[in-house]
Amino acid sequence: MLTRIDHIGIACFDLDKTVEFYRATYGFEVFHTEVNEEQGVREAMIKINGTSDGGASYLQLLEPTREDSAVGKWLAKNGEGVHHIAFGTADVDEDSEAIRGKGVRVLYDEPRTGSMGSRITFLHPKDCHGVLTELVTAAPATSEEH
Amino acid sequence: MLTRIDHIGIACFDLDKTVEFYRATYGFEVFHTEVNEEQGVREAMIKINGTSDGGASYLQLLEPTREDSAVGKWLAKNGEGVHHIAFGTADVDEDSEAIRGKGVRVLYDEPRTGSMGSRITFLHPKDCHGVLTELVTAAPATSEEH
Repeated sequence: MLTRIDHIGIACFDLDKTVEFYRATYGFEVFHTEVNEEQGVREAMIKINGTSDGGASYLQLLEPTREDSAVGKWLAKNGEGVHHIAFGTADVDEDSEAIRGKGVRVLYDEPRTGSMGSRITFLHPKDCHGVLTELVTAAPATSEEH
Repeated sequence: MLTRIDHIGIACFDLDKTVEFYRATYGFEVFHTEVNEEQGVREAMIKINGTSDGGASYLQLLEPTREDSAVGKWLAKNGEGVHHIAFGTADVDEDSEAIRGKGVRVLYDEPRTGSMGSRITFLHPKDCHGVLTELVTAAPATSEEH
């Protein structure tokens, strides 16, 4: 069951400048940064609020580490903006299989590693009214940070 | 101070079909529907989770009521997808003036009426790294519903 908006993924050309925009404009501070080589992104997580399921909602700022990554190609086509949205669930395996069974294309055969040790998968935007949609199960240690 | 992700605004061609997609795929139920003639949209709010500031996070599904509305023009150009993101604040007037003072273009001189009696304004996407950004102060009665 999807129980929170986990994050909004925002693609940008320059992570440092975009982080600075969010800090200077809204006072938002970075909670976590990492490079995900599999996804081809350098990212900064900004925690916005806690959520009623015991998790949290973040902005995830994404800069591609290579032009041929999914985010790199998306940026070249669309320019900066909202790249995807993500819902949090306690069990990404169960939920993604149930959703696959409804005829929505799930992009990975098995969930992969996302931000902060989470397990993630994506749903095809053409099956989701144009919205690239991620499902996330947070790592246990991450939940305790909240 | 912005204290929550208030909602993600998603533009669609057919509100009823999109509502049904979110219900059938994820089990999400509509919390509220309304027509905002000023904005030129028919909308459905889907409540996803409560937030640590005492508010809530929603998906806001938007169907234009006329082609020349902002959402109607956006859909004609971009197709369905994420139209804007919104941060919640206790004082949209104070925050929007502070942000205007930092050189970010605020689209309204004064906040206008948004979903469920809220007061809203928007920041120019070109000043926000490509993200059309809304600021929202919920109506007092709405906060009690949460």
